[in-house]
Amino acid sequence: MDFTFDWARATRTGLPEAVLCGAKSAGQLADIVAAARARGARLLLTRLEPASFAALDETARAGLAYDPLSRTAVLGGEVALAEAHVAVVAAGTSDLPVAREAVQTLAFNGQDARLIADVGVAGLWRLMERIEEIRACRVVIAVAGMEGALFSVLGGLVSAPVIAVPTSVGYGVAEGGRAALTSALASCAPGVVAVNIDNGYGAACAALKMLGVAAPGDRGA
Amino acid sequence: MDFTFDWARATRTGLPEAVLCGAKSAGQLADIVAAARARGARLLLTRLEPASFAALDETARAGLAYDPLSRTAVLGGEVALAEAHVAVVAAGTSDLPVAREAVQTLAFNGQDARLIADVGVAGLWRLMERIEEIRACRVVIAVAGMEGALFSVLGGLVSAPVIAVPTSVGYGVAEGGRAALTSALASCAPGVVAVNIDNGYGAACAALKMLGVAAPGDRGA
Amino acid sequence: MDFTFDWARATRTGLPEAVLCGAKSAGQLADIVAAARARGARLLLTRLEPASFAALDETARAGLAYDPLSRTAVLGGEVALAEAHVAVVAAGTSDLPVAREAVQTLAFNGQDARLIADVGVAGLWRLMERIEEIRACRVVIAVAGMEGALFSVLGGLVSAPVIAVPTSVGYGVAEGGRAALTSALASCAPGVVAVNIDNGYGAACAALKMLGVAAPGDRGA
Amino acid sequence: MDFTFDWARATRTGLPEAVLCGAKSAGQLADIVAAARARGARLLLTRLEPASFAALDETARAGLAYDPLSRTAVLGGEVALAEAHVAVVAAGTSDLPVAREAVQTLAFNGQDARLIADVGVAGLWRLMERIEEIRACRVVIAVAGMEGALFSVLGGLVSAPVIAVPTSVGYGVAEGGRAALTSALASCAPGVVAVNIDNGYGAACAALKMLGVAAPGDRGA
Amino acid sequence: MDFTFDWARATRTGLPEAVLCGAKSAGQLADIVAAARARGARLLLTRLEPASFAALDETARAGLAYDPLSRTAVLGGEVALAEAHVAVVAAGTSDLPVAREAVQTLAFNGQDARLIADVGVAGLWRLMERIEEIRACRVVIAVAGMEGALFSVLGGLVSAPVIAVPTSVGYGVAEGGRAALTSALASCAPGVVAVNIDNGYGAACAALKMLGVAAPGDRGA
Amino acid sequence: MDFTFDWARATRTGLPEAVLCGAKSAGQLADIVAAARARGARLLLTRLEPASFAALDETARAGLAYDPLSRTAVLGGEVALAEAHVAVVAAGTSDLPVAREAVQTLAFNGQDARLIADVGVAGLWRLMERIEEIRACRVVIAVAGMEGALFSVLGGLVSAPVIAVPTSVGYGVAEGGRAALTSALASCAPGVVAVNIDNGYGAACAALKMLGVAAPGDRGA
Amino acid sequence: MDFTFDWARATRTGLPEAVLCGAKSAGQLADIVAAARARGARLLLTRLEPASFAALDETARAGLAYDPLSRTAVLGGEVALAEAHVAVVAAGTSDLPVAREAVQTLAFNGQDARLIADVGVAGLWRLMERIEEIRACRVVIAVAGMEGALFSVLGGLVSAPVIAVPTSVGYGVAEGGRAALTSALASCAPGVVAVNIDNGYGAACAALKMLGVAAPGDRGA
Amino acid sequence: MDFTFDWARATRTGLPEAVLCGAKSAGQLADIVAAARARGARLLLTRLEPASFAALDETARAGLAYDPLSRTAVLGGEVALAEAHVAVVAAGTSDLPVAREAVQTLAFNGQDARLIADVGVAGLWRLMERIEEIRACRVVIAVAGMEGALFSVLGGLVSAPVIAVPTSVGYGVAEGGRAALTSALASCAPGVVAVNIDNGYGAACAALKMLGVAAPGDRGA
Repeated sequence: MDFTFDWARATRTGLPEAVLCGAKSAGQLADIVAAARARGARLLLTRLEPASFAALDETARAGLAYDPLSRTAVLGGEVALAEAHVAVVAAGTSDLPVAREAVQTLAFNGQDARLIADVGVAGLWRLMERIEEIRACRVVIAVAGMEGALFSVLGGLVSAPVIAVPTSVGYGVAEGGRAALTSALASCAPGVVAVNIDNGYGAACAALKMLGVAAPGDRGA
Repeated sequence: MDFTFDWARATRTGLPEAVLCGAKSAGQLADIVAAARARGARLLLTRLEPASFAALDETARAGLAYDPLSRTAVLGGEVALAEAHVAVVAAGTSDLPVAREAVQTLAFNGQDARLIADVGVAGLWRLMERIEEIRACRVVIAVAGMEGALFSVLGGLVSAPVIAVPTSVGYGVAEGGRAALTSALASCAPGVVAVNIDNGYGAACAALKMLGVAAPGDRGA
Repeated sequence: MDFTFDWARATRTGLPEAVLCGAKSAGQLADIVAAARARGARLLLTRLEPASFAALDETARAGLAYDPLSRTAVLGGEVALAEAHVAVVAAGTSDLPVAREAVQTLAFNGQDARLIADVGVAGLWRLMERIEEIRACRVVIAVAGMEGALFSVLGGLVSAPVIAVPTSVGYGVAEGGRAALTSALASCAPGVVAVNIDNGYGAACAALKMLGVAAPGDRGA
Repeated sequence: MDFTFDWARATRTGLPEAVLCGAKSAGQLADIVAAARARGARLLLTRLEPASFAALDETARAGLAYDPLSRTAVLGGEVALAEAHVAVVAAGTSDLPVAREAVQTLAFNGQDARLIADVGVAGLWRLMERIEEIRACRVVIAVAGMEGALFSVLGGLVSAPVIAVPTSVGYGVAEGGRAALTSALASCAPGVVAVNIDNGYGAACAALKMLGVAAPGDRGA
Repeated sequence: MDFTFDWARATRTGLPEAVLCGAKSAGQLADIVAAARARGARLLLTRLEPASFAALDETARAGLAYDPLSRTAVLGGEVALAEAHVAVVAAGTSDLPVAREAVQTLAFNGQDARLIADVGVAGLWRLMERIEEIRACRVVIAVAGMEGALFSVLGGLVSAPVIAVPTSVGYGVAEGGRAALTSALASCAPGVVAVNIDNGYGAACAALKMLGVAAPGDRGA
Repeated sequence: MDFTFDWARATRTGLPEAVLCGAKSAGQLADIVAAARARGARLLLTRLEPASFAALDETARAGLAYDPLSRTAVLGGEVALAEAHVAVVAAGTSDLPVAREAVQTLAFNGQDARLIADVGVAGLWRLMERIEEIRACRVVIAVAGMEGALFSVLGGLVSAPVIAVPTSVGYGVAEGGRAALTSALASCAPGVVAVNIDNGYGAACAALKMLGVAAPGDRGA
Repeated sequence: MDFTFDWARATRTGLPEAVLCGAKSAGQLADIVAAARARGARLLLTRLEPASFAALDETARAGLAYDPLSRTAVLGGEVALAEAHVAVVAAGTSDLPVAREAVQTLAFNGQDARLIADVGVAGLWRLMERIEEIRACRVVIAVAGMEGALFSVLGGLVSAPVIAVPTSVGYGVAEGGRAALTSALASCAPGVVAVNIDNGYGAACAALKMLGVAAPGDRGA
Repeated sequence: MDFTFDWARATRTGLPEAVLCGAKSAGQLADIVAAARARGARLLLTRLEPASFAALDETARAGLAYDPLSRTAVLGGEVALAEAHVAVVAAGTSDLPVAREAVQTLAFNGQDARLIADVGVAGLWRLMERIEEIRACRVVIAVAGMEGALFSVLGGLVSAPVIAVPTSVGYGVAEGGRAALTSALASCAPGVVAVNIDNGYGAACAALKMLGVAAPGDRGA
């Protein structure tokens, strides 16, 4: 079976192709990595569980820089990072894997980020202590599970766009992240936008587009 | 048709009977008011829409003190109010009817309340300006629709119990109040409890029980 | 009853206060308009149904520029518009009220917009005919109901951020806009972000923040 | 325990009986295979996980042609295939197991199919490159997870009926396939019909009925 | 405001454009009818409530053949009908408006249909009395609300494809048509496909595609 | 920790206590069995997975008659069975565990039952062949998953009450049994009643009450 | 349009046909009443709103005995009533219309019933005062909205089968009756069965079947 | 990575910080315990599964008092307990882990509690036997799964506030605890408040606030 990779996406949307590994078999992943290497293409792999990474053959693993916290891997090495224009703000310790997926995606595309963690609104002073750091950024990615109150509080405090990433952290009515997602969409603070639950990658892609760094010279379809 | 009113409830739970008018006909309501008057009982009517109040016959309307904002009516006159131990905190103008239903229920039971409105978290300074007033109370009733972020922020700022009343104010994913309810239940701030959507009456009943004023001398079943 | 308006919001987030009229009474709206006029503040009113506008007293109506299609009104007159950096793309005729709410909100804040309508994906050539106009913009607001396939198709064609506004246009499984919202969030095209159903106002606010025009000189809390 | 197989179904509806293996025990499956073999009947088994296939006794496994990607098995050997009148179009790599279940079901019933994969709408050119191949078919089976935008785009491009098969590929709001299913049903492109999530077998059965090859000489009940 | 009608759809998909009137204003509908008349195009209008039809100006109403039961209107007159190859089977009296929308859509496109009503499965003999009439057709459209058991029973009795149209007839758990829709999708009878709730128009379009009469000579995009 | 068993239930409702084992630990189960044995009480255990049965200590297992298909166990031996007045009708092979739980519960209470399996409505003749056997019973328990069309078809064919037991057999929209449950509740056939998903035990208890055999001589509370 | 009434239902299931009026037009209802009168058949009409009854022509209204509380009408006069074997127990005043629909349906079929109202569990003594009356019946129909706790409490107190009828009385999470329905299905008291929300008619039909009075001499299909 | 613990919470809200262990790794937990020990702080850990406790390194485990039933652990030893003012009432054996989490949280904060188990309403006499013990308490925590009828029955019997803790005990419609949660919120007994599903910790925190023992001398932010 051969794959029709969307190598043209970078020229069209300014974002290189990434591979969502979740539902793919080890064989499929190995084929994709081999195809990218054959083209000399850089590649970002997301949602690559440690067990799935370990199940790859040695050839596939070679050259992949794997980060277990965010479950991402990079083929083709690092690039130089521009100064941080994006703040990635996480409510709790359990939100770190998703926050870090955003940071890794930004880094893959050459953008540094400020990661500000453990600033949930139940202890508001923690957020207020770091609010000036956040205000210095051009885009804010907010990562929170449970009831997602962080999104509205942040949205009322900064002039930059706030990209809310609800996480699946929580139980009972919060299980799976729906409560946090709903809070992001229903936010009383204007200018908050949302991506899918646990989608740190998508938030980073949106941030890249907002920074204008996703725009290449030509955009032929 | 005759009704089996739970006149014994006051001695058993310390809360006098109230009448939820929503689904009852004008005839049913008139019968209930007449029965209460015959016993000389005080009565609180909730969810009595202006049109339903107007549809009552003159006998039923006489003696009812009607408040259109909260859609409540009281039979049997006012009682003296104790000093305010309860803060009723409302996020926005649209939450006032529900907040006022709580205030009226407390007043019916002899308790004054501090109503603090328009302190939604998208403009956090408004809440912070009045936080000491709120902290001076023994129970806090928080009333909010939309994403209900107020519940968690308040829960992290006060030592009193916070009773969250989600309201049906909102549209899209917030329509009907489910988003605010979920935020209350999933709150990252411990000590927040919730009642049903738009249930200002129930929040006030819970507050009365928490103040201990719902407890009569004897509680025979 | 007096209101605690968040007049400080403009200095804090760069976005002037707007009034969501839906659940407010004619009396409450008149009070708000009077307070704004007394301060000499400009004001945007959204979700002001024709019947609600007609129910305002003459003093309140005077000076309000009302647009029935988008159900918005402006107090304080128009401002000069900057060149259009935002494309507002609507799938069908029924999506126009929401698309126009976005256009009006941008105009209230001094930004022109290109409104491109009737380009639903069931007739793909309609969208392709106008894709270069859309690509010339720095931010794209996409407005669609039904199944919301427009969001993903657009997201794969442009390098600008795409703000998806699902609309409540549809019936059966699409009733209320949930189907379109879900499509926006689950989009296979990275860089698509979403706001609440029918929230043209919120999409415009996010666009203003992305353009950087929401950022004032000082941002004191 | 003995089974009442619907051996009459073929004469009544033109479709031979198939066995959905998911919730059946190894013992139950072995009994069914033995009964079919005793009658000399051909049999298609679907949703037979590799572990369940391995758990069958050797007698049951003998004569079963097992395909692990689609998790199908065939008893009774292959039949000659008619020319392909059905296109099976899959959005992504993760949709292949379901697409292949459709292809296997068609083959079991004597129909070849064209499998066209990796043509998701986020990279529209991939679909456009192969659209003429698809247009040459009399029935189109479209297989997609995530937001399922493929269904509407295809429905607007071909004159053949489009059978949408939503897949459970996705996470967050797309988890379990509901987002893709809703998109299929709410499609703005007329003539799109849907089957249950991951139901490649059902889509193939519907295609057989549309081709008229499901119709036997006599159809007595 | 001018509209971008998809006049090319007929050549591309074989189905002429139809107008879903539900969320459109009287002014918008009049503009669309005028544009069609100016082109000399035939037009089908669906979900045109009697009140909306009455609200059209006289020019718009002239030439429209309006059917109040199905809430459809036709501009441009009738065409000759081919012999009936489609059975439209309705479970109850309350399902007739949706069934009739399917019949009208087929007639607009030159196809006669057999309407078979009041054959719900709670009285199975009613369906069995007419099953041979149904079996004589090449496509079956089944229309049912409540629990939608008709879809599975029919699917097991005929060799033609069964297009299930769930209707919003029902109350309690059946309210809005979700119960019937779920029954269609979860049907134990293979070969049943579904369209959106109350979508008689969409079922007819799918039937036209299945009959092959939707396929024109050229299909340029 | 000691348990407050409801040994009085038999005299009050005519049904002996049963133990739902699902969420209980091996230690808790052993304590319950020991307490029953000490009282000389008969006991029915339901939802006792094979692994949980195996995890019980030998003392607890001794004297328990375990049936792995239905996952039930009986302490205290069998009783003589009355003639069968209850038909237990199962749509498919995968519904047998739930059907058998009903049969075991009836037997524990002294009632025989006729188990009629594999009579799903997609092959209607299978049901019609056995309908007279079913009609000879005073109560019918119908067990079905997927879309649950069996409930309505049966309800229209017999004069006995039909107790619908939806099962969690199914996938996609039928996953977890909600589709079958909704079909039971929305049934167009009057006289169908429903119990919870997979609740064969509850259906049997209801049948016992309907037969009047649950009624003891005295019913003191 | 002519109707295919299921006049054979009485001989098959022992229950005469009833007409659910909700979604039918005045014309359709008049036709049905005329057809019944022509056959000399008795007929029960349910969910006939006062406005719909008033909209019938005089011929249709003549001979119909209309009960506005339950919204039922009877054609063909009353029959003699057997002694009451059924208790209809209603939690609150707002549940009376549904309770009364059950009573009317039983009376139409010759069975008297004991209506016991206002015995909600928040005032448990009310229920306990009347429990012996309820225990004297062979079938119990329990009618409750809100959280439906009455179903479980009753189920633990009586040996007769309890048919739970959840009502749509309630607001917030209880809106539409889902909370009460779920309580009925999840009841910890074995032997509780449920019908659809507000389905007093269906509960009465089930009670008739349980009493055995639904069983005629011959049951030919 | 270092953590920003909210050590100030105790002075602000009167509740010491607790750690929800569910989604945290063994490494993260060890870091948190070490940080607390370094400060000499007492710490409560909740949702610490036996496997997760066993996975901690020996240093982390030392000094942790672990309770497997409630899955809680305490660092820093026990404190003297005040007389019991809180009743923790559990419906069934399966609800004990959640009930015990509440008891452990109260004890961590110096409050004893009365645990009253196995008093589900299907056997009402069990509850009535112990009602005076419950009435002697100032706060009642009610813990129940399934349909949660206990909440309403208790709410009607006591004058103390009732904090409902729905548990995820149940199957079918009760799976995950939603049925019990809805019953708590829709309760017909005023004064019942709810926390999230399985949130014994949160109920205990609310009880502490209601007792006033959560209020420290100074409450500076």
